[in-house]
Amino acid sequence: MMPIPSTLVFVTGGARSGKSRFAEERARQLGGEQVTYLATAQAFDTEMEERIGRHRADRPAPWPTVEEPLEVARVLPTLQTPVVLLDCLSLWVSNALLRGDSEAEILQATADLLGAQRQRGGTLITVTNEVGLGIVPDNALARLYRDVLGRVNQAAAAASDEAYLLVSGLPLRLK
Amino acid sequence: MMPIPSTLVFVTGGARSGKSRFAEERARQLGGEQVTYLATAQAFDTEMEERIGRHRADRPAPWPTVEEPLEVARVLPTLQTPVVLLDCLSLWVSNALLRGDSEAEILQATADLLGAQRQRGGTLITVTNEVGLGIVPDNALARLYRDVLGRVNQAAAAASDEAYLLVSGLPLRLK
Amino acid sequence: MMPIPSTLVFVTGGARSGKSRFAEERARQLGGEQVTYLATAQAFDTEMEERIGRHRADRPAPWPTVEEPLEVARVLPTLQTPVVLLDCLSLWVSNALLRGDSEAEILQATADLLGAQRQRGGTLITVTNEVGLGIVPDNALARLYRDVLGRVNQAAAAASDEAYLLVSGLPLRLK
Repeated sequence: MMPIPSTLVFVTGGARSGKSRFAEERARQLGGEQVTYLATAQAFDTEMEERIGRHRADRPAPWPTVEEPLEVARVLPTLQTPVVLLDCLSLWVSNALLRGDSEAEILQATADLLGAQRQRGGTLITVTNEVGLGIVPDNALARLYRDVLGRVNQAAAAASDEAYLLVSGLPLRLK
Repeated sequence: MMPIPSTLVFVTGGARSGKSRFAEERARQLGGEQVTYLATAQAFDTEMEERIGRHRADRPAPWPTVEEPLEVARVLPTLQTPVVLLDCLSLWVSNALLRGDSEAEILQATADLLGAQRQRGGTLITVTNEVGLGIVPDNALARLYRDVLGRVNQAAAAASDEAYLLVSGLPLRLK
Repeated sequence: MMPIPSTLVFVTGGARSGKSRFAEERARQLGGEQVTYLATAQAFDTEMEERIGRHRADRPAPWPTVEEPLEVARVLPTLQTPVVLLDCLSLWVSNALLRGDSEAEILQATADLLGAQRQRGGTLITVTNEVGLGIVPDNALARLYRDVLGRVNQAAAAASDEAYLLVSGLPLRLK
């Protein structure tokens, strides 16, 4: 679609590490007001609603927002701004597992997403979570989630042009 | 109070990552024997007592120790050594949540602490924990704790002059 | 035994961070086909069997594999290849705790392992897990495990010539 080359920026970190803020600053640097915010969050309860509301309030006003919990690869090519900020891969994986997608399906969907971005061109900034640095979780779904998300993160990071780990709000350059 | 400028050193990492030892070495480099150890640990059970005892045994003998679980911003300006080693912010946040302080109160107390240090001058070395890199915890208090601590860590890291992430005893420079 | 000097490469990271793959690439660079894979995994259930099977399938075919869940310091000097890939310290510590070894015994066994490598010479590449960056675990055995593993990792990292933290498949150089 666009004649400009595809650039992928990968931003990871723990909970409350400043990932979203850093990704928004990078989006503003690269796209100014020409940024679409692609949100994957779904509210299942009031705590989640409150978290989403807080994120929404923090977002710069002029950016259009598209909310898409699952079909990100299908929606991405329809977005017209040079820069898209996808927040976040970790909720996208969680949404897919909750509707019953298998690990193989989610890894295929990740490849489709990365392919859609290469075709679209422009810049995609992806936010994700690191969840594998604690004790092995007791429950099997949590173990499956950290395995699948770990593989999705590796695929996205491998395809990225820039990658950052956020720690206490400060970026460590990975790539 | 002191005419020397304020310096803030931020040291974070996981459990048993060598944070306290690294912070103590940095304190010794910057202050020699002119260091006050400001401890926030409170023993609620024998495991905690044993952990505190172990930390105490590791501490260099000549440093005076002040134990203050909560009112750190009030105590800090009364300390007379050029260097203060605050170990740790994570227990301080835990103590505040356990007595019922709200997130807003704790963030205000963090701003007060950072302000008190700027006023005091000299060097403050703060140790803290990263707790947000595992699976989302099941219980709501743990989720609140990692949210609040994450914000406190971001505020302290943003105000710092030096920041380090310890991994397996080795420092990664963040800033 | 061998006249060549001892080199220790330390590779850490979270679950699904790409540690094993990175360590295998480093082993291939340093040893080509002259690598022994020293595996500490023990299958207690079908999930673990499936994980071990997956790891085995990923391994380069020509490397001989020795499976030793506990007596690594005793086995290491008997291996004849210039490069040994030990995967992983974290399961080794888990196996030792499960048979009832104390923290002091495990730290002594770690010193023995590092000593055996210095005597053997050649290259030892060790893989391990970071497990201390989440919320404090509820159960006492998990807390003990992360304490002991943290100390083992610090000892190995301190003795290493190269050290890496893997994040989303990308290496951060620690040393």
